Amino acid sequence: MTEKGTARVEAFSDGVFAIAITLLVLDLKVPEEKFPSGTTLLVELASVKFLINYLAFFLSFVSILVMWVNHHRIFTLIKRVDDAFLYWNGLLLLFVTFVPFPTSLLAANLGHEAAKGAAAMYAGTALAISLAFTALWHHAIRDARLLAPDTEKEVIELSRQYRYGPVAYLVALGLAYFSAPLSVGLCLLLVVVFAFRGLLSKK
Amino acid sequence: MTEKGTARVEAFSDGVFAIAITLLVLDLKVPEEKFPSGTTLLVELASVKFLINYLAFFLSFVSILVMWVNHHRIFTLIKRVDDAFLYWNGLLLLFVTFVPFPTSLLAANLGHEAAKGAAAMYAGTALAISLAFTALWHHAIRDARLLAPDTEKEVIELSRQYRYGPVAYLVALGLAYFSAPLSVGLCLLLVVVFAFRGLLSKK
Amino acid sequence: MTEKGTARVEAFSDGVFAIAITLLVLDLKVPEEKFPSGTTLLVELASVKFLINYLAFFLSFVSILVMWVNHHRIFTLIKRVDDAFLYWNGLLLLFVTFVPFPTSLLAANLGHEAAKGAAAMYAGTALAISLAFTALWHHAIRDARLLAPDTEKEVIELSRQYRYGPVAYLVALGLAYFSAPLSVGLCLLLVVVFAFRGLLSKK
Amino acid sequence: MTEKGTARVEAFSDGVFAIAITLLVLDLKVPEEKFPSGTTLLVELASVKFLINYLAFFLSFVSILVMWVNHHRIFTLIKRVDDAFLYWNGLLLLFVTFVPFPTSLLAANLGHEAAKGAAAMYAGTALAISLAFTALWHHAIRDARLLAPDTEKEVIELSRQYRYGPVAYLVALGLAYFSAPLSVGLCLLLVVVFAFRGLLSKK
Repeated sequence: MTEKGTARVEAFSDGVFAIAITLLVLDLKVPEEKFPSGTTLLVELASVKFLINYLAFFLSFVSILVMWVNHHRIFTLIKRVDDAFLYWNGLLLLFVTFVPFPTSLLAANLGHEAAKGAAAMYAGTALAISLAFTALWHHAIRDARLLAPDTEKEVIELSRQYRYGPVAYLVALGLAYFSAPLSVGLCLLLVVVFAFRGLLSKK
Repeated sequence: MTEKGTARVEAFSDGVFAIAITLLVLDLKVPEEKFPSGTTLLVELASVKFLINYLAFFLSFVSILVMWVNHHRIFTLIKRVDDAFLYWNGLLLLFVTFVPFPTSLLAANLGHEAAKGAAAMYAGTALAISLAFTALWHHAIRDARLLAPDTEKEVIELSRQYRYGPVAYLVALGLAYFSAPLSVGLCLLLVVVFAFRGLLSKK
Repeated sequence: MTEKGTARVEAFSDGVFAIAITLLVLDLKVPEEKFPSGTTLLVELASVKFLINYLAFFLSFVSILVMWVNHHRIFTLIKRVDDAFLYWNGLLLLFVTFVPFPTSLLAANLGHEAAKGAAAMYAGTALAISLAFTALWHHAIRDARLLAPDTEKEVIELSRQYRYGPVAYLVALGLAYFSAPLSVGLCLLLVVVFAFRGLLSKK
Repeated sequence: MTEKGTARVEAFSDGVFAIAITLLVLDLKVPEEKFPSGTTLLVELASVKFLINYLAFFLSFVSILVMWVNHHRIFTLIKRVDDAFLYWNGLLLLFVTFVPFPTSLLAANLGHEAAKGAAAMYAGTALAISLAFTALWHHAIRDARLLAPDTEKEVIELSRQYRYGPVAYLVALGLAYFSAPLSVGLCLLLVVVFAFRGLLSKK
């Protein structure tokens, strides 16, 4: 009845993903002091402090990009949405718009005493996002009316993927207790794996 | 004659909603001091000050999301727009883009002496938004040429909902005179009610 | 040959308008001091300093909204775009994205000694925008292949409107030499006139 | 199989381009001091410091605009995308969202001792973007299934253009070692050339 096509949810979600991914750059602060030469400026821009900032920017950019590709894939499999779907999607977007905050936190604390706390916050946000994706996905497949026809094979494949995501990010959260670099490294690894699984499963 | 399809108004409005909802995170400021350990950072992030910030972020995020779902629903019922509709929609968007300001104000003042003033500003903005929604809706249904066919039942249902909204937010504004938490609590309750009424009325 | 439909230019332009209009709120700064009571906070929020900020926000919001409605109307009259059109449209968007800067300047200086300078900058930006609109429009109507069929009447009407715009904003720029409020007032009046001319000409 | 139409990639990319281009204005900071008259404010706004800021804003705006036109053109030639294309497109967007950072850097350092370093960073980013465009383009044309029919002539023309871009920006990067203005000037020249080649090749 009042189920709608997916066009506007996709447009709204695309907007949120696009803005969240573009806001990340606002965290890269231009050094305010004046440098005596171009070389000293470049040395500063290649210092550990900046490398950590680039890493945080890169990690979050790639994470949001892979989320968007995933979101995109879900929408190729469904043909309409109901209101509950809109709210699950909203919960997912809530965590996506939140990403710039733990990213900032990571950039400010990695390499300092409180790094583990920032890593925990980052991995925790990633965990929340993977849970929201799982919930959105389960709502979509529970009601056959939402799914597009002839999608069984892809649905099974994606369902398997959504089973491992939350577990893996829970491990990353646990690792933060022992080592910030290990936790952040696992988050990065997971993003790469999710990106390439998508690529490989296409072959 | 020059009435247009709704595609571009929806795209523009989606953009505004998406940006307003994503800008909210800029209010979550990363603490600048260095913490001696990950645990102290996490304790700070779970302190009352931060909880109030998360609450303001969450409240405004959910409010804008529910507004967007509502906006989405109005557009499933109309098939074209005239210029006056564009300006009523513009008035609504004016208040929507304003939301980050009272949200900031709430985050900065809740738990402090001036909390009631911030709550009044917040509830007042919510009241203005609900009035703009009502005006937009009345313009849409006054002219049968704008409505899509076979929408009578939904139109009646939505009209009933728009009758209560402004009254409820007026009460929230009045409550701010007595207690900031009560006023904010009512705003939160109303968002939940509007979200679930939509869900329930679908069954 | 490589002329394209208008869908993507509209989407990109909508994005730019939507972001420029939503960024305006970032200029409304929450007062950092703590107020002793809700009433004192509300008094501050209703002070001249804040009213000037709201006015600048409102003026620029409405201006960008009316520009968007105008842009929207131009695109109802054309059916394809060529590369030169894309660049004229780009010039228009350049000035539109610039709007938050003179708006900030106005908010910071209205009511102070340098108000006339800020008003001149504001009116100058509005003049540049109206010239860019005129250029875009002339490029669109010079080549009949870009126009949609059966649009002669509307084309003539819009062309008349584009003749007066730049002249009116030139007057506003000149007025800034004598009085900032008069110049800003004329800008506000012009926005209202352009909005209502659109509405009236529909009857 | 799971190759999708291009609509949503275009919408997401349009969003990113539109936001990146609009964020540039946030770098134009309103002077905080109060000026004794409108004239002194206007003199300040026309000072070398501000002209450099406008130049950086203008250069990056036009660069992103030309990139968007280019992106737009690529998408007129392809009819579907695969996952690898999404990631190449993502790499391109990574560098596009990064643009506000070297722009800020340039605005802060041009005319100062460290100008060459900022120019190198800027030209380096432009080089990275032109390499990402080349990679995206080569992926698109390697697989005939992605291309729309009857596009051979345009494909050959665009391929030639993509051969010169990276080389030209490499020269700009090298020039930064000798002179910041020369390097920035070449970047500006290249943008103009790319814009007009597109225009001329249409005749």
